[in-house]
Amino acid sequence: MAEQEKTAITPTREENYPGWYQQVIKAADMAENSEVRGCMVIKPWGYAIWENIQKNLDVMFKETGHVNAYFPLFIPKSFFEKEAEHVEGFAKECAVVTHSRLEDDGKGGLKPAGKLTEELIIRPTSETIIGASFSKWVNSYRDLPLLINQWANVVRWEMRPRLFLRTTEFLWQEGHTVHATKEDALEETYRMLNVYTRFAQEYLAIPVIQGEKTESEKFPGAVSTYTFEAMMQDKKALQGGTSHFLGLNFAKASNIKFQNREGKEEYAWTTSWGVSTRLIGALIMAHGDDNGLILPPRIAPLHVVIIPIYRNKDEQNKVMDFIDNIKEKISSLRYNNEKIRFKVDNRDMRGGEKLWEWIKKGVPVRLEIGPRDVSSNSVFMGRRDKDFKEKVSVNIDDFIKNLPAFLDEIQNNIFQKALKFQIENTKKIDNKNEFYQFFTPKNKNNPEIHGGFANSHWCGSSKCEEKIKDDLKVTIRCIPLDAKQEKGKCICCGKESKKRVIFAKAY
Amino acid sequence: MAEQEKTAITPTREENYPGWYQQVIKAADMAENSEVRGCMVIKPWGYAIWENIQKNLDVMFKETGHVNAYFPLFIPKSFFEKEAEHVEGFAKECAVVTHSRLEDDGKGGLKPAGKLTEELIIRPTSETIIGASFSKWVNSYRDLPLLINQWANVVRWEMRPRLFLRTTEFLWQEGHTVHATKEDALEETYRMLNVYTRFAQEYLAIPVIQGEKTESEKFPGAVSTYTFEAMMQDKKALQGGTSHFLGLNFAKASNIKFQNREGKEEYAWTTSWGVSTRLIGALIMAHGDDNGLILPPRIAPLHVVIIPIYRNKDEQNKVMDFIDNIKEKISSLRYNNEKIRFKVDNRDMRGGEKLWEWIKKGVPVRLEIGPRDVSSNSVFMGRRDKDFKEKVSVNIDDFIKNLPAFLDEIQNNIFQKALKFQIENTKKIDNKNEFYQFFTPKNKNNPEIHGGFANSHWCGSSKCEEKIKDDLKVTIRCIPLDAKQEKGKCICCGKESKKRVIFAKAY
Repeated sequence: MAEQEKTAITPTREENYPGWYQQVIKAADMAENSEVRGCMVIKPWGYAIWENIQKNLDVMFKETGHVNAYFPLFIPKSFFEKEAEHVEGFAKECAVVTHSRLEDDGKGGLKPAGKLTEELIIRPTSETIIGASFSKWVNSYRDLPLLINQWANVVRWEMRPRLFLRTTEFLWQEGHTVHATKEDALEETYRMLNVYTRFAQEYLAIPVIQGEKTESEKFPGAVSTYTFEAMMQDKKALQGGTSHFLGLNFAKASNIKFQNREGKEEYAWTTSWGVSTRLIGALIMAHGDDNGLILPPRIAPLHVVIIPIYRNKDEQNKVMDFIDNIKEKISSLRYNNEKIRFKVDNRDMRGGEKLWEWIKKGVPVRLEIGPRDVSSNSVFMGRRDKDFKEKVSVNIDDFIKNLPAFLDEIQNNIFQKALKFQIENTKKIDNKNEFYQFFTPKNKNNPEIHGGFANSHWCGSSKCEEKIKDDLKVTIRCIPLDAKQEKGKCICCGKESKKRVIFAKAY
Repeated sequence: MAEQEKTAITPTREENYPGWYQQVIKAADMAENSEVRGCMVIKPWGYAIWENIQKNLDVMFKETGHVNAYFPLFIPKSFFEKEAEHVEGFAKECAVVTHSRLEDDGKGGLKPAGKLTEELIIRPTSETIIGASFSKWVNSYRDLPLLINQWANVVRWEMRPRLFLRTTEFLWQEGHTVHATKEDALEETYRMLNVYTRFAQEYLAIPVIQGEKTESEKFPGAVSTYTFEAMMQDKKALQGGTSHFLGLNFAKASNIKFQNREGKEEYAWTTSWGVSTRLIGALIMAHGDDNGLILPPRIAPLHVVIIPIYRNKDEQNKVMDFIDNIKEKISSLRYNNEKIRFKVDNRDMRGGEKLWEWIKKGVPVRLEIGPRDVSSNSVFMGRRDKDFKEKVSVNIDDFIKNLPAFLDEIQNNIFQKALKFQIENTKKIDNKNEFYQFFTPKNKNNPEIHGGFANSHWCGSSKCEEKIKDDLKVTIRCIPLDAKQEKGKCICCGKESKKRVIFAKAY
């Protein structure tokens, strides 16, 4: 087969990483650009991954006491203006609704009509509109904590859209909580950061670094923003999601007050936290190879695909009977508290073509079953965490017995590989020249690829932060939560520093 | 308790049906109006019902071969204009995005900026934007059928909004499918109508009448629209959802063509079908009573609520130990393939207050457990399908053994009650005076309440349909699919008619 000689994806990661990313999405049939600038269409394979992300995160949110609700898509302009930093952060990129109908323009077309007395903003995030409800819902300390989550679409007008990573409309969840004390709100902020981290590592198989954002990178209106950052295979960082401690800022803007145990009225402490369809971009770039997508089993729409191989009716009957038997056995198995998700691909196409389709889609386990396998009571198994040529014949009973363990092994292998990559490409750097060298691309054909994450000292000044950003397009991704107190010198100005931070180029 | 003397909801259904509806929603804490005109906030109890609707319908969609995907919120004006009837139907009530940012207006406020070259409409429904994708996805008969569903928010500018029934933004699902032949598309249209009917009857416990819409009531752009109509307790009809056979109309508008088996290019046949958060309004009005919401178990966020009753620490320990034991036993039970959803309400409030809260929220089974129940190894059970005073003491082992059966019985009782009501208030009417009398309210205090559904002959002319609408605000809800061919005379003009149709006032 021609495909086996070269890679299924052109260009390869080495040749052109952004080009490779687009082609993986196309080859796996996950999403496409729509006719509306900056908006994507999430195709069934991409959406099924999002459904698995939703399902598993939703369980984790509910286990931590949150309930779902739904708030309006529209935010009145005046609400939006209530928090100064917030509006400053989002006004430059928001969709504005100004009219409520279309009418004949007298030229055979339609023009906007029914001008609104107040413009409506399509939510870029919902702190202000949810705050309006919360100010009604919260009256007494007995109403707290209030722990709400919303699954929704949001709109941020993007100038340079990229599928999943940066789109004008995207899907996400946004948690919004209210607490009686600062401590409770901070605890919630960390709790949800930990939920995200656990989800990223245990489900998406992506190792992440937890940390706090610097002043310049925090959420507009937050007191502090916590993030989990992951390394992609081009060694750039991707912010997976954020958890914000909002202090009293939004409570003051939206008038969220409660009567405390002593009968005194005070402002409440709020948090918000969110992850989006961007996680799918992270999944692609953390694990994919030059043959396409590689999906961790816990998040894969299919765990197993079965491809029957036969040349005539007789063989077909024999093979399909055998597969019926396997289907029954697989149906009784469970993996990660769910049924095994499998599919028999019996389309009228060449077996090789099918096989490559599922490789490109990243399905963890592929079975090819022909008459000879039936005779030997075995299956021919390929795994997406291994080279596609490495296929093995496995006795069918052993296969069934070990399938959940195989999936666990694949999940773990994918995580370990990504972790090894992250560790290998994270470097403690204390010398400014070395730092600048680290972020200079080595491969002229692929200027995207450079050294990785630099773990270096920073004095805390925004001047140094800006200089490095201007010189190298490198930003401080986070101040790691586990950073040790350690004396050192700022990588930029040489002044005294107490902590190392993570510097990287970022998506 | 004072509440036991009067009803928990004021006004009652008899006193003021629309007022009762609003108060049930408020008492059950399901939703509220937001600060954005026409948009509602779906509160956790209301949203949990929507989650159960979604979860169960989604399974049914997938069992019938559909997959989920996601398409843009925005529809370019030019797309919207492609199908003449369609745009005519929706142009009068759509949100129009004209700008992509806000900028300083020089007066301390913000004004819209970044005028778009083409206005974007917030989807009121997605035929045209999804059609743009389908025209790319469909090339050959091998690509068909294409069976897609989307869970999304949509916007239709409402002049007279009512919570759940009619809101500017609402949540829904919209199925969109493409087929090679007219027969296949029609079969799909009926299949999904049947899925909806099964869901309404078996999950929402609402009996419905399936039928075809008349020309004047069909979806803008459809060849034919099928509906399922339910009777509310004010005897008005509520359209639960619709399934549209779109013929070639949208295929032509969006250029959805395929190469058939003979290698000839032809237009494809499409369908669309949807249900929305309106179903929650139907649920409230079909089953609720003067003490609040009544939820069928299959859709209830909680099946069982347990209220511990104690006066001191000793009793508390005794009761809570007993409840721990019950929790463990309930946890191992299943109802309708899911775990039993239960909650122990241990809040620091009076028992009676709690009890009434859960009655108003419609929870199917309430258990009150005090020290005496512990001593007799029993629970004190109230059921929402019975009078709140009808409580019985049940041995705990019998309770656990019979709980799934109790829930089934409640589900069935709720359905049978609604069915009886529908049958009792549906009348074959062949006399015009009687017909007019039937739709005249009997209760002057509550002009909303009248006779019910009239099953009468109609000649097929839109003139008669209009006259009845003008005279009585009564419309043809549908031409029932099971209507017999039967000679008769039009209830309006007396001309010959071949079929009876359902006339009713409607939401």
